[in-house]
Amino acid sequence: MKMTEQYRIFEVELKGTEEGNPYTDVWLEADFANGEEKVRVNGFYCGNGSYKIRFMPGKTGKWSAVTKSNDFLLNGIPLECVCTAAKAENHGRVLPMSQVQHCSLEKEEEHRFRFSYEDGTEFFPFGTTCYAWIHQPEEIRKQTLESLRKTPFNKVRMCVFPKYYDYNKKNPKDYPFMGSLEEGFDLTCFHPAFWEKLEECILKLDQLGIEADLILFHPYDKWGFSKMDRETDLAYLRYAVDRLCHYKNVWWSLANEYDLLPWKTVEAWEAYGETVMKRDPYGHLRSIHNCSSMYDYTRSWITHASIQRIDVYKTAENITEWRAKYQKPIVVDECAYEGNINYGWGNITGEEMTRRFWEGCMRGGYLTHGEVFVQNPYIWWSHGGRLYGNSPERIAFLRKIMEQAPSGSAPLKLTPENHQANWDAPCFCREQDKSFYLYYFGFSQPSFRSYELPEGCRYEIELIDTWNMSIDKLPGVYEGRVRIEMPGRQYMAIRMKRV
Amino acid sequence: MKMTEQYRIFEVELKGTEEGNPYTDVWLEADFANGEEKVRVNGFYCGNGSYKIRFMPGKTGKWSAVTKSNDFLLNGIPLECVCTAAKAENHGRVLPMSQVQHCSLEKEEEHRFRFSYEDGTEFFPFGTTCYAWIHQPEEIRKQTLESLRKTPFNKVRMCVFPKYYDYNKKNPKDYPFMGSLEEGFDLTCFHPAFWEKLEECILKLDQLGIEADLILFHPYDKWGFSKMDRETDLAYLRYAVDRLCHYKNVWWSLANEYDLLPWKTVEAWEAYGETVMKRDPYGHLRSIHNCSSMYDYTRSWITHASIQRIDVYKTAENITEWRAKYQKPIVVDECAYEGNINYGWGNITGEEMTRRFWEGCMRGGYLTHGEVFVQNPYIWWSHGGRLYGNSPERIAFLRKIMEQAPSGSAPLKLTPENHQANWDAPCFCREQDKSFYLYYFGFSQPSFRSYELPEGCRYEIELIDTWNMSIDKLPGVYEGRVRIEMPGRQYMAIRMKRV
Repeated sequence: MKMTEQYRIFEVELKGTEEGNPYTDVWLEADFANGEEKVRVNGFYCGNGSYKIRFMPGKTGKWSAVTKSNDFLLNGIPLECVCTAAKAENHGRVLPMSQVQHCSLEKEEEHRFRFSYEDGTEFFPFGTTCYAWIHQPEEIRKQTLESLRKTPFNKVRMCVFPKYYDYNKKNPKDYPFMGSLEEGFDLTCFHPAFWEKLEECILKLDQLGIEADLILFHPYDKWGFSKMDRETDLAYLRYAVDRLCHYKNVWWSLANEYDLLPWKTVEAWEAYGETVMKRDPYGHLRSIHNCSSMYDYTRSWITHASIQRIDVYKTAENITEWRAKYQKPIVVDECAYEGNINYGWGNITGEEMTRRFWEGCMRGGYLTHGEVFVQNPYIWWSHGGRLYGNSPERIAFLRKIMEQAPSGSAPLKLTPENHQANWDAPCFCREQDKSFYLYYFGFSQPSFRSYELPEGCRYEIELIDTWNMSIDKLPGVYEGRVRIEMPGRQYMAIRMKRV
Repeated sequence: MKMTEQYRIFEVELKGTEEGNPYTDVWLEADFANGEEKVRVNGFYCGNGSYKIRFMPGKTGKWSAVTKSNDFLLNGIPLECVCTAAKAENHGRVLPMSQVQHCSLEKEEEHRFRFSYEDGTEFFPFGTTCYAWIHQPEEIRKQTLESLRKTPFNKVRMCVFPKYYDYNKKNPKDYPFMGSLEEGFDLTCFHPAFWEKLEECILKLDQLGIEADLILFHPYDKWGFSKMDRETDLAYLRYAVDRLCHYKNVWWSLANEYDLLPWKTVEAWEAYGETVMKRDPYGHLRSIHNCSSMYDYTRSWITHASIQRIDVYKTAENITEWRAKYQKPIVVDECAYEGNINYGWGNITGEEMTRRFWEGCMRGGYLTHGEVFVQNPYIWWSHGGRLYGNSPERIAFLRKIMEQAPSGSAPLKLTPENHQANWDAPCFCREQDKSFYLYYFGFSQPSFRSYELPEGCRYEIELIDTWNMSIDKLPGVYEGRVRIEMPGRQYMAIRMKRV
């Protein structure tokens, strides 16, 4: 009997027909059951007469199934999986917090804007972007993983298809489909070696505690993968979901810059989104990423907004507005890149990248990092490799601060009463019991701030230098009206904890 | 015969009644004529039986008038003024460019967004703010003027009434009205010494080539001047206009933060604006300044928008939108202050202040500086005195750059064709003959930029470091597609001049 840890993959390989085109001709499925719970999974063909059925059990105990297929060799095979409890570091899938039963956040209203692992541990995405890292040579992929191991990033935006764009002109070693640019691609045959490599990449990320935000379509193309017809797109989506949905750390990003693929209509994206949603029995997170025109993130198949800022100047600051509009978790998956590329989307300083992260976190959203220093042969934003910027260690510092915030914390709601004291600096706090306040001052450089502390409450106060990554506890305990001396520098924060 | 230089003040003092309250009881006027041109001016009482008639001739030659008054001592007195041509440094009033006949700007559409002296010289406001400088001790007023002499600022926002606010709690030496806080004010009697001091301040500014942007009402008050009744407000406005409109460098700012005086209705402001417009025979510039709620700057009595930014993050960047909306010159009279006050309106860095100025100038608007370093006994924003910040010298550098731009330059209009190359950096240019392009990169730090220069045109290209105030001419002359190497630092600009 095969033992499988909860949220990890149970896999069986079956031998079936090699005749015709098994990718298009053969279907294979299994209904796993464990008491009342039932999960239908689709198997998939992986070349050489080999078929696989994968299953990620979410509940401990015995799961059993019998295969169904139109290939008699694959039909009626009994399967059994004994699921053991997840180990400490294994929290399962990330889901919208509102879908998780025993989530750690107490403030219900805030749930809709938050993520949680399925074991109830809150998940704060601190993403980065390595669009085409899986298409780079093996030693660069290794370097990417090694770099990621040292950073705070727990989500990577990455494309299935190779990327063709400035600084990205090389052909990859292999493609999702059989064939080559020179000889053409057979869009009905998937390339086993490619998918195995992709799976290895997803698994390696999982071993680092990193979510794979998989971009299913994108416009940076010279091979034709961005211009396949509807049926080919759908067959590709079904194959990708059937193979990959069993990895607990997969997120589905329908597209990068969907609006740069204008030949695909919104109706098509809706159909693709619905397909992914229905095909994936685990309900992994789903979104779609814009360039200059926002997608309607209220659509029911979309679990969270995956936004590129559409204003050169205001990015994370818009999270307050986007939360109100979309009522879902807001991930600003492009807020510009730290670096020095010639394009305005990728040449902000590390200071500004860090500021955008802080600003966004205080406003109850999430940010994704990226880096483009064009003097280097491999550029993180596309290739992965090494990081050169100075924001990642500050983002690590911020991640710790955010993870130390008591659960149930949320952005301060501005009211006519508190507006005067708070209009100019966002605050992340726990208003329900007044236990926690974190104020961020960004590019402002006050020499002091005054606060009227909630009546009857006493606080420890810390001055945080978000750039120099220091936390200085002020002597004593504070109540009533306080004046907090500050250094008159940018990028400071004040943290108050009720004692 | 009295000789008066064009745009300067012809003044006669007359003796009239001291009985009753001459401020309210006596009227005095004179219709000056010079050929076809006629100008009606109102005289005013200045205490001790003394009345004055002032007149600013706009045209050379002989002007004559006969006084009219309800006081027989002041009635029927013939006046004569011979106006001589303005000297080189005397350009007259500043007006909307669209009102000036022989203005220097060739591009008509842009006229509505620009200012000009009446002699046709373009005026680029580079303002600063010393709200209550006239109410400070004489040695501080002297220091303020000495500071202004060394700065690029050619417009000062300044209040008639004293100011009561944080860091501004002292009573001034004198008030616009007779009386004191302790004994009460007689709102029907103006205080001659105060108005003489104010006039001296306006004149001293004029001697430095600085416009006095006079704020007629404001909310920072403990003396009651912000809560006078409608008739008292109107009498005060008439007196101020009758006395001060003859100074060529006066602008009328109906209010600072009009919306912090909610007991004055928009209907009242409209009436006050109309009163000032009708009472001032010279048509000096008129506007009104907001706090959090924009005034309708399309109103006919308003010559230009005098805006306080209402977004913490986006300030000068909104000028493009405000130009389109108001179709008048846009002056961002508060874009925050360089300094370290506890309030978010006054603690940006010199870098950010300078960036806002550049950003706004590229977008065809004007900015006003201010400074609040609270460790000093006198704070520029209110008291004047000394400047401590590091933006003024950079603003001086920018002013030179802007004044070197060929007349007729305007913000680049974004089109579908040029969007790709220009969406991320504003450009001030002369599109009509492709003779001039000034690109500003703000907080972006590109390591190079590429441009497709207009066909058949050759350019000299300069790299400008707006912070370090250097201009480096690149070797040679450029045409066609060019790649300009840049240092990968913030605050750079590129200037191209057709050769």
